[in-house]
Amino acid sequence: MTTVVADISVSLDGFVTGPDAGPDNGLGTGGEPLHTWVFESDDPLDAEILARSTERSGAVVMGRNLFDVIDAPSGWNDDMGYGAQHAARPPFFVVTHDPPADVRLELDFRFVADLPTAIEQAKAVAGDKDVFVMGGGEIIRQSVDAGLVDELVLHLSPVVLGAGTPLFVAATRRELVQREVRPSRTAVHLTYDVR
Amino acid sequence: MTTVVADISVSLDGFVTGPDAGPDNGLGTGGEPLHTWVFESDDPLDAEILARSTERSGAVVMGRNLFDVIDAPSGWNDDMGYGAQHAARPPFFVVTHDPPADVRLELDFRFVADLPTAIEQAKAVAGDKDVFVMGGGEIIRQSVDAGLVDELVLHLSPVVLGAGTPLFVAATRRELVQREVRPSRTAVHLTYDVR
Repeated sequence: MTTVVADISVSLDGFVTGPDAGPDNGLGTGGEPLHTWVFESDDPLDAEILARSTERSGAVVMGRNLFDVIDAPSGWNDDMGYGAQHAARPPFFVVTHDPPADVRLELDFRFVADLPTAIEQAKAVAGDKDVFVMGGGEIIRQSVDAGLVDELVLHLSPVVLGAGTPLFVAATRRELVQREVRPSRTAVHLTYDVR
Repeated sequence: MTTVVADISVSLDGFVTGPDAGPDNGLGTGGEPLHTWVFESDDPLDAEILARSTERSGAVVMGRNLFDVIDAPSGWNDDMGYGAQHAARPPFFVVTHDPPADVRLELDFRFVADLPTAIEQAKAVAGDKDVFVMGGGEIIRQSVDAGLVDELVLHLSPVVLGAGTPLFVAATRRELVQREVRPSRTAVHLTYDVR
């Protein structure tokens, strides 16, 4: 059965990027510690968790801002991102009312006007794998609020950013079930059941 | 040596109370899950963590709003709070420019005009025990921002509150060191080195 997972790295003060994030500044200014567990860890647990989520990805959902970061020249390449890590290269559903005229990356991007439809289409093609909602913050918040995801996975990094893109803005109150807590040397990997 | 610990329970979206918190509504509306680990847990780890911090308390620092919650008729009593749990009953330093005319609780409250002085006085009397900065959110944020604490302890509860009192508002960027992660069945107890 396909599980829909909202999966994102977050600071101790709830930001998913530092300030001034944009296509050429994906993690925002000073936001690099959010991805220490991805890029600079020598803890095998971090590598295991990254590999597991990549392997489980039957389809991926993202917002337009995140797409713009990924598809920018400074974005994913042969060494970084799904293009590098995932031989199967799942389809990527991008929520946008305004699909881009050109796409740099040679990946299977599909542009969809709204989040529920993107997740529905992602589930339809994920087969026996899972759907990963990978951000940004607003897409994760919407997907949790609307009960569109089964799991919320947070990679909690030991940094206070002070400003940036918040994960949760005026979310709907919701009690979750804490299911898995896996601390590595660089982050705490948290899994919650949303429904 | 005395360690200064900022210690508070927080939701997944970074709130230390739900909305409409006040003297008779300490955790705010719907904020009860923040203290499930304190009051409704059957996990011995939660009891151990609560007992350890109480036993380690040589002095406690709090803001005025938190004092008003604690000293209200619905606040601490013989069954709840330091009055019940701590035979030694440490002195409590309350940061306020406007000390109350009357105090209900028969505890050692001392009113101090600013946070650095409160922490300094608390350290002076803590002996070989520790100083706990117990809230609210603004006092914790100020104490971390100013580098007045050695450790930040967060009890992360599996709830999204959507509104309430934020822990961190426009904090200063700071990288911490993740030192201890202890998941119980009701919360994740996180300890970070601040300096």
